Parts: sequence; C-alpha cells; structure tokens
Amino acid sequence: MNGMLYGVGLGPGDPELMTLKAARLIGKANVIAYPSLEGGESFARAIAANVISKGTEEIAISIPMSVKRAPAQAAYDKGAAAIAAQLEVGKDVVVLCEGDPFFYGSFMYFFSRLSDRFECKIVPGVTSVTACAAALQAPLTARNEVLTIIPGPMGEDAMEARIAVAEAVAVMKVGRHLPKIKRVLDRLGLTDHAGYVERASLPAELVLPLADAPETAPYFSMILVTKGDDPWL
Amino acid sequence: MNGMLYGVGLGPGDPELMTLKAARLIGKANVIAYPSLEGGESFARAIAANVISKGTEEIAISIPMSVKRAPAQAAYDKGAAAIAAQLEVGKDVVVLCEGDPFFYGSFMYFFSRLSDRFECKIVPGVTSVTACAAALQAPLTARNEVLTIIPGPMGEDAMEARIAVAEAVAVMKVGRHLPKIKRVLDRLGLTDHAGYVERASLPAELVLPLADAPETAPYFSMILVTKGDDPWL
Repeated sequence: MNGMLYGVGLGPGDPELMTLKAARLIGKANVIAYPSLEGGESFARAIAANVISKGTEEIAISIPMSVKRAPAQAAYDKGAAAIAAQLEVGKDVVVLCEGDPFFYGSFMYFFSRLSDRFECKIVPGVTSVTACAAALQAPLTARNEVLTIIPGPMGEDAMEARIAVAEAVAVMKVGRHLPKIKRVLDRLGLTDHAGYVERASLPAELVLPLADAPETAPYFSMILVTKGDDPWL
Repeated sequence: MNGMLYGVGLGPGDPELMTLKAARLIGKANVIAYPSLEGGESFARAIAANVISKGTEEIAISIPMSVKRAPAQAAYDKGAAAIAAQLEVGKDVVVLCEGDPFFYGSFMYFFSRLSDRFECKIVPGVTSVTACAAALQAPLTARNEVLTIIPGPMGEDAMEARIAVAEAVAVMKVGRHLPKIKRVLDRLGLTDHAGYVERASLPAELVLPLADAPETAPYFSMILVTKGDDPWL
C-alpha cells in the first residue's frame, strides 16, 4: 500500500503562525520534503525547524532560480520522483510549503506530478496576504467588497487595467517589479492608499506607506491597496 | 496603563487549523471576547473551546442577524464598550475571530471602534478560501494568475461582469445567493469549472462539483472557479 502525500502550509514565516495540524504532522513525519535554493538554503525548512523530529528523513529538492522554464521543470520532475520512491514503499511524505500549498506555491508542481498516482491531503496555511494586512493593521475586505490578488510580474498595462476596476488589491511577489507597480499606482492616484510590507511576520519585517518604500524590494514583499473613503495609512 | 487588544484569527473551523500563536494567546488570556448569535451560540468560541483556560473571563457579544444595519451597529457599540472597560483597567483582551480578523470578519467592527484609543495586535489566520481549495484538492493560483474574491451578496449583473474578466474566482458567503451564482456561472459557461464546498474543514464538510450542489446552501459555503485548460473537477 502506498504512503500518503501531505501538502502542508507553514504560513508566512513566523514559526508560531504554523497551524497545530502542520506542527503535529511534521513532528510525527518519517519523511519530509521541501524545496531549497541552489546552495541548500530552504525557507520552508527554516520555518518548520523547531518541530522537525530527530531522525526524520529529509528530501531537499534544489530548485534553480532561473527565468528559463526547463531547468525548474527538470528539478520538479526529479523531486517528484524522489517523493514517489518513498510513497511507493508505503511511507507517508510531508511536503513543507511556505504560506499555503495551493496559493502561488511550489507544491502545485509536485501535486500535478503525483496526485493522479497517490492519495493526497492538503493542510491549508496562513497566507502572506492576511499576514501583511495584520502587519499594516489594515482591514482588507469587509461586507461586500471584492479583493483582487495580483502577481507582481504581470505586465504594466494589464496590471493598471486590473487595479483601475478593483476595490481592495494585494500585489504579491513585488521584488524587482516595485518601480513598475509604483508607476501604476501613481498614475491611478492610489499611492496614498497603498502600504508596503516586506518579510511579513519575520524578525526583519518592514512596514511602510508605499511612498516611503525602499528603492529595491525583496521577492517576499507585498503592496496592499484599499480605495475606501477611510484610507488606513 | 491600558491593556493590549488582540484580534486573533482561528481559521476556518477545524480547531487544529488554529495557529500555534492563536492557541498560546488564547490559553494564557485573562479575558477573551467573541461574537455570538442571539441565543448564545458562538462559532468562534466553539473553534477555540479546547484551548480556553479555566477561569478565563468571557465577553460574549450577541450580534443580531438582521438585514437592518442599526441593530448590529448598536451591538458592536455595546461589545466595544465592554472590551474597552477591560482594556482601561489594564487587562489584555483576546478577541476570537473566525477565519482571519481582517478578511470579511466581524473583528473589523471592533477594530474601527477601538484602534484609535488602544494598542492592537492582529494574529492572521487560515482563511476559508484556501481551506476550500484544500478540500477540493484544487490549486487556486499559480505563477502569474490573478485571484478574485467576490462576496455572494453582490448584485447579479455586477457579479457576472466581475467573473467574466477574472481567472480564478472564489465566491464567499454563498448561502441564499446560491441560485443567483449558479445562473451567473451557467451563463458564462463555467459550471463545469466550479466546485462547491460547505463547512470547509469541519466534520460536516461537503465537497461537490457545482452541478451537484444542493438547492439550499448554508452561510458558510463557497464556490471556487478556475478557467484553466485543465479544469480540476
């Protein structure tokens, strides 16, 4: 009998923002797997470090940071094969996922490669969107407001069109796209309605009105925009 | 010195989907507060029940379920006053919030009444959106996809216009709006791309393709739609 594949969300970075279920599953896991950068660092493993038991088998899956698609795809293929090898001998595998497994996460690449052959359970996690709202002390959406979540890499015109008709907006994965996003919000007259957060919930968390944001942003940064009559920044 | 106001997200309903931080703060709280229905039932308190310590003082805030605005506003005023009375004598108050405090939650009504006078900390929680995606085993958004979150009460034409231009969509708070949402998705040819979830993560959880959804839906139900080439239902 095959093992169970678990996709477990770890939340935005503060280890205390893991769920009780994530902590329990990781703590009793015989095998865990996680993506890591070339060189070995893994943000996912760092979040979970305190709850990983001694003797747990670890599958570190090195994902090249490249704009080319093929090298990453090959790395996901290789990682999925390593996970499958454990599942096939009846071992459960807990895959560690920053944030939530199905919300812009790398787990989906493993899920798409394995879910037709193996039973799978998903444990949702706190996303960076609500962690950033908490850091900004900014209510995201109330009553009948629509929330639009936009990835930073989107093209400038498309992004402007989306934000123009949106109410509350979260722009994810800001990183090197910060100047473009600033231009868009400036043209729409929304700069004063926008907050900037990097590394939400981590010790290095930075929370600023967008107008005061640094010139360069890390990948783990976000911009939240509300258009209400009652701007919160 | 005033006490600290905590807005603590409890996640979608499974007590194990509380964060470690929520469980710690609730467990050591001297005073907790939570909304309850007229008659006394509180979903928030039920989620947290196992971690509430004996002897914790409880402020149950009865919120009338009414389409009229004034009675609910008066109830939030009264609840905020009861919380403020504790904060003013130096006690911290932990407000229990289903899901996430800043994501369509009642906490925002207390926050707006109290945050100018009292220091406040927000603890984000798992939202029903990613809990429903987990239940459906349906990846929500990858790469550069936009996610649009729409409240069920939105008018039919406005909802159709929003969904027509959206990629992934979550329609929250379905309840009595189910027939309208079904009509909208049917006209847009999206019924086969839509999944229905009620009471995500609870023992009574129900997960179905939208076409098989029941005639009547509870308030805590959601419809997720993806338009990808690779529909997941």
